[in-house]
Amino acid sequence: MKIAYAQMKIAAGHPDVNTKKILQLIDKAQKGKADVVIFPEMAVAGLMIGNTWQQESFIEDCWEYGEDIILASKKNLTVVFGNIELSDDSGFNAIFSARNKRLTCTPVDAGLSRYADDSDNYFSFIIKGKRYNVGCIFNNENFHFKGKMDFCINFYSEPFSIDRDFFFNSPGCPTIRIGLTGIQNTGKTIHSFNGGSAVFNSRGEVVQLTEPFEECLNFVELEEIDKMPALELPEVSETEKIYRAISFGVKEFLEQIGIKKVVIGVSGGIDSAVAAALYTQAVGAENVILVNMPSVFNSATTKGLSEQLAKNLGCKYYVVPIQESVDWTVKQLEERGIEVSNFVKENIQARDRSARILAAIAASVGGVFTCNANKAETTVGYATLYGDEAGFLSALADLWKYQVYDLARYMNEKIYKFEAIPQGIIDIVPSAELSTAQNVDEGKGDPLKYPYHDYLLRAFAEDNLTPEDILGWYVSSQVEDNIGCENGLVEKYFPTAQDFIADLERWWKQFMGMGVAKRIQSPPILAVTDEPYGVEQESQNCLHFTRAYLELKERLLAN
Amino acid sequence: MKIAYAQMKIAAGHPDVNTKKILQLIDKAQKGKADVVIFPEMAVAGLMIGNTWQQESFIEDCWEYGEDIILASKKNLTVVFGNIELSDDSGFNAIFSARNKRLTCTPVDAGLSRYADDSDNYFSFIIKGKRYNVGCIFNNENFHFKGKMDFCINFYSEPFSIDRDFFFNSPGCPTIRIGLTGIQNTGKTIHSFNGGSAVFNSRGEVVQLTEPFEECLNFVELEEIDKMPALELPEVSETEKIYRAISFGVKEFLEQIGIKKVVIGVSGGIDSAVAAALYTQAVGAENVILVNMPSVFNSATTKGLSEQLAKNLGCKYYVVPIQESVDWTVKQLEERGIEVSNFVKENIQARDRSARILAAIAASVGGVFTCNANKAETTVGYATLYGDEAGFLSALADLWKYQVYDLARYMNEKIYKFEAIPQGIIDIVPSAELSTAQNVDEGKGDPLKYPYHDYLLRAFAEDNLTPEDILGWYVSSQVEDNIGCENGLVEKYFPTAQDFIADLERWWKQFMGMGVAKRIQSPPILAVTDEPYGVEQESQNCLHFTRAYLELKERLLAN
Repeated sequence: MKIAYAQMKIAAGHPDVNTKKILQLIDKAQKGKADVVIFPEMAVAGLMIGNTWQQESFIEDCWEYGEDIILASKKNLTVVFGNIELSDDSGFNAIFSARNKRLTCTPVDAGLSRYADDSDNYFSFIIKGKRYNVGCIFNNENFHFKGKMDFCINFYSEPFSIDRDFFFNSPGCPTIRIGLTGIQNTGKTIHSFNGGSAVFNSRGEVVQLTEPFEECLNFVELEEIDKMPALELPEVSETEKIYRAISFGVKEFLEQIGIKKVVIGVSGGIDSAVAAALYTQAVGAENVILVNMPSVFNSATTKGLSEQLAKNLGCKYYVVPIQESVDWTVKQLEERGIEVSNFVKENIQARDRSARILAAIAASVGGVFTCNANKAETTVGYATLYGDEAGFLSALADLWKYQVYDLARYMNEKIYKFEAIPQGIIDIVPSAELSTAQNVDEGKGDPLKYPYHDYLLRAFAEDNLTPEDILGWYVSSQVEDNIGCENGLVEKYFPTAQDFIADLERWWKQFMGMGVAKRIQSPPILAVTDEPYGVEQESQNCLHFTRAYLELKERLLAN
Repeated sequence: MKIAYAQMKIAAGHPDVNTKKILQLIDKAQKGKADVVIFPEMAVAGLMIGNTWQQESFIEDCWEYGEDIILASKKNLTVVFGNIELSDDSGFNAIFSARNKRLTCTPVDAGLSRYADDSDNYFSFIIKGKRYNVGCIFNNENFHFKGKMDFCINFYSEPFSIDRDFFFNSPGCPTIRIGLTGIQNTGKTIHSFNGGSAVFNSRGEVVQLTEPFEECLNFVELEEIDKMPALELPEVSETEKIYRAISFGVKEFLEQIGIKKVVIGVSGGIDSAVAAALYTQAVGAENVILVNMPSVFNSATTKGLSEQLAKNLGCKYYVVPIQESVDWTVKQLEERGIEVSNFVKENIQARDRSARILAAIAASVGGVFTCNANKAETTVGYATLYGDEAGFLSALADLWKYQVYDLARYMNEKIYKFEAIPQGIIDIVPSAELSTAQNVDEGKGDPLKYPYHDYLLRAFAEDNLTPEDILGWYVSSQVEDNIGCENGLVEKYFPTAQDFIADLERWWKQFMGMGVAKRIQSPPILAVTDEPYGVEQESQNCLHFTRAYLELKERLLAN
């Protein structure tokens, strides 16, 4: 028996688009003489359809498109696909099997519920006069089938994450893992899907593997699976995975919203340079506009690096100074008796760049502008709302600063194969250049010391740790080991317990306070980990220290 | 037996603050000779604590504060309160009962699970030598107790909503309903809690009622409840409810984030005028700064109305023109060969006002600026990101335009008792005044015809209806009846089916497209209905029409 499986790109919320593609693939599978063709979970509606689940007419629409697929099944070709099952005017996620224009799946008459008891999760096919029991497994969930299965289908719908290892719990029979590609989103979070489809033999070894992020229709003879040689899984570095996922994600997202032109503010710093290099690869230099927007605080160094970057990438490049506008804003306020502090002047610069210049250029060219904030900045709100926190997408906001640097080096070495991102940008101290206190030529920059704060903030953001945990480790000199940063940094950055505590409280306050407030209004974030912002609901409840923390701190400072 | 119940304000995520208040109220209850004092569900941690649930140290912190409350219970005073129950290092929502410094609740040893079987939802107290069986009911959920209850506690934790009727399903015994006040949020949505605590007799009649949105500690003798006279529920209009909830909500939210000064851009239109009147009432005229920011498109009419509004409210008033800055931005772009269309110029104005002027003034005075978008605008994204869509809070974004007008008239009549919001602002055509096409003096304004679109968009946003439903009603001349707008409007606004369809598709496209995209980056929204934006997850999946809609449209246009 010949099985075809379609690792296809699914457009969430577009049953018309998906069904058209499925019908084409059914034809292709038949031409390839398949007996069964398998499509992903929720292939008709898409997985992340948000509150569209509540639109009865949408649910019925998906069901009706599903009927087209059923009618396209052949006398000699069983079609297995995921779609919404109707139930009392609402819907649920189900798997369907059809042959000869009729639904054939058992035991559930009209569809196999995604959430049925595990023991119900099997189909029974009759193909060429032989009955096959086909178990269904969802993602890496548990299964326990009542009888022996002839083969299994593993519907694999996990979005891409660098945190997820390749995992397969073999049911002891040949198994087709069917994944999907494309991007889907929950509003604030954009997930990419890298496919991950594969064929496993009865011993759980991989014998056929698909290219990540690519669509394909593969074939395999069921009877051959246990005779095929086991494949080695390709070794892929974390940075390469990140590069693939992000360049795929931005390209797909732009396609989805129907936009070609991308405007990027480039400061001469690492984040905007990596964004520029990424988007240039994804949509082509002819579609990327780089804009440098200096004020009096921007050094000749970073202005030169920006220009060099634009030259290297071959993008259109504008220099649009903001000083006159910033001065004018300050003048308008001061004339009315409103005092404008230096700190306020910093944020005026940031907003002037994004909301005045970049947004206007993007709108004028029918494009979008990007938000280049990394995960450390996003965690503590070290960015200005309507300023550098603005944009159509935050493509780097699930990457810690060290991962942004890794990506820069990776792209220079493997993608551009020359110093497209000038080494000067990689070497310069990270700085917002919004005041004389952030003068890069004097080695001054951001208050975030990334080699330490990347890891401290990761402990807050991804591991749900709090100052109580961190200070506990400080007492036993285990901070670096536990958060994963280089040894010696705590002593280097914080000579006294007081220094350590002041820093800890500063960033915890930002994380619980302005960090949350700004993330509520931030652009969508492209996810590459299991813990991107936007997935977990964050309440804006401001600063709290546990009593155990306060007691520990008091004891520590009393010594 | 004397029962005290504390309708208290709960600070989500702040067990220290809540516990301090609970301990004070326990003392007060004892002084009042209560035998039992009842606190709300999750009184220690707060209900909406988002992903803080995943911080082990926070969960343990709440548990330890709960121990303080247990230790504060007296020999003659049972304390019933909601808190997080520990379970394998995670937590769940539970009710606790303590007496004489020890937990006393049964049948669950250490807490009564919020999610236990209904039949388990009772305590057993021994007070003055007598055993009382006390049933627990959560919100308006079903209950079925195994035996007869001596009285019930109804933990009522629903946030305020104008859609929710007063409802009580009597268990046939005296019942204390205990609610909470304050605000809690899920990030994008700010919910207010109006309390709603009450005492019901065995027949289900109200015999004691608390003031909405106010904290109080009330007492009642259990044996008296069935002898007390039944109370009439006060009649409160929808607009009065909305006014109370919003003025409470903005005041509480400002308090929570520790901000006093509020900056409001006033255009001479209704939304900003209502915002100005609301905030002035909530935080005092001395804390409100109104800013009019005219361009060449702003009429003398609206400039005059803005000034009059500021005079009436007694707020500080600035006029900060934006034309020079807008011209400068256009010049900077055009000098670089970038063509700037009139539409782009409109959005440049909107961003210049919020991101350049309002944000700078707010930061300079240590305050915030408001977003005044209503629900119709929010639904279709008829507002500019980083422009009029920006701000610290959208206090009006759960109100349709007609509700904003109702609120204006209500405040003039009942709160200010004079035309604080000038009648001219109520009478003028709604207009963004961003181009000559929106000249108010010529009666031109917004593309939204609110008497119709308010209701069409409500059908999309609150009732999950789609063009398929609306066009079906159009065919049978039932649109107005079904969406609830005035009769005759469809014919008035749309002479032909083509006109009707073009309008329907225009706003559906906006609702599914830019509406979603902008809401992802919008400020938090103060909820007054069951269907505010931010509660349901919205995926950005762009435009889709069902096949049934497209077929219906084709048939209709063929005729």
